[in-house]
Amino acid sequence: MEFQKTAQNRVKRGRKKASYDKAVIYSILDQNEICTVAFNVDGKAQAQPINYGRCGDLLYLHGSAKNRMTSILAETGEVCLSVMTLDAMKLTRSAYHHSVKFRSAIIFGEVRELSTEAEKLQGLKTIINHFVADRWEHCRSPNAKELKATRVLEIKITSASAKIADTPPVDEPEDYASDYWAGIIPVKTVYEYPLADEKLKQGVEIPSHVLEFYKAKRQSKKIKQ
Amino acid sequence: MEFQKTAQNRVKRGRKKASYDKAVIYSILDQNEICTVAFNVDGKAQAQPINYGRCGDLLYLHGSAKNRMTSILAETGEVCLSVMTLDAMKLTRSAYHHSVKFRSAIIFGEVRELSTEAEKLQGLKTIINHFVADRWEHCRSPNAKELKATRVLEIKITSASAKIADTPPVDEPEDYASDYWAGIIPVKTVYEYPLADEKLKQGVEIPSHVLEFYKAKRQSKKIKQ
Repeated sequence: MEFQKTAQNRVKRGRKKASYDKAVIYSILDQNEICTVAFNVDGKAQAQPINYGRCGDLLYLHGSAKNRMTSILAETGEVCLSVMTLDAMKLTRSAYHHSVKFRSAIIFGEVRELSTEAEKLQGLKTIINHFVADRWEHCRSPNAKELKATRVLEIKITSASAKIADTPPVDEPEDYASDYWAGIIPVKTVYEYPLADEKLKQGVEIPSHVLEFYKAKRQSKKIKQ
Repeated sequence: MEFQKTAQNRVKRGRKKASYDKAVIYSILDQNEICTVAFNVDGKAQAQPINYGRCGDLLYLHGSAKNRMTSILAETGEVCLSVMTLDAMKLTRSAYHHSVKFRSAIIFGEVRELSTEAEKLQGLKTIINHFVADRWEHCRSPNAKELKATRVLEIKITSASAKIADTPPVDEPEDYASDYWAGIIPVKTVYEYPLADEKLKQGVEIPSHVLEFYKAKRQSKKIKQ
């Protein structure tokens, strides 16, 4: 299933790297925890990082009920956000062709602030289980006071695009004879072994859902429930 | 030296994590290669990742002369961008207190499109040497055709803030007796050993500036020329 190419999501530069495939775009979303949201303050665009969760065509964001960005997004009713994973630095013989291997996604969606406790709990569950699969079932659920203090936004993804750059360094034909070094420096996001909180109750072992998360990340894949 | 706190850059939520110190903000910029820029298209805010270079209070961005985002930024004359490094995932006994350790910076600046070849070369040198220190001196400089095809933007940083979250997990007092596991999963960006391009001229060894970059990143520090 592909998102329709429109003036909004069509990739203008580097079209060969572009994808409108939902499976590709959603796998980039699922491999990341943090996106950067764009929003307007007095007509000026601002960028701010925030974590998120995905379930089907829906994304969820949350923040304090007093948070400005989520308040503006709820009022605006639409949003654009991006995520990116850096995979390698590409060093070429010419300054001009230096580049990076990466996977990025740009998402456009309609924003709705969730109001009922049931809706908010469902949104927060998605965020927590996106963070670490199965985590929601292994921690204390938010109480009424905590829910009241939290704004939860649901974003219906209406349009999106991805860019995947994974090709080797390329130079101008005349530069290949030069003595300048060219190559790549691979970049990886490594999730290390879980460390228990110092105040953890004696006898509580690292649970299997946390170990599974660690193992899945070691294999550069993230389990998605 | 600190940036003045104004309505624009003042951190509203999580004030204890906030810093307006130039040294702190610039070290976050220097440890990263990619930022996310916010810009308006027909009055709607969009987010898009791009690489950058810093020299003093100036940032440089570049793109194809046909690139829409850099064209819009040049026209708008001002920009907001953000960078973020994820350092750990914080798992708490309560869903409510789940969080991450991170270092982020939000930058506001005035944008000027560089027009002379000398200015553009200086901007591109900053970007390439921010990418890998000393790289500019060890690759072929852009020629007139390449320079013409490239738009280079200079951003004078006028305001900024950082947020650094590096505290251990915290729960409500009544949750510490629970059997739920709490702890952190450290996250690291690892730069692996440089791999030569398959088409590299025979006899060309990995140069010292590339090995130095690798070693510096292994020590979680980036050399800044």
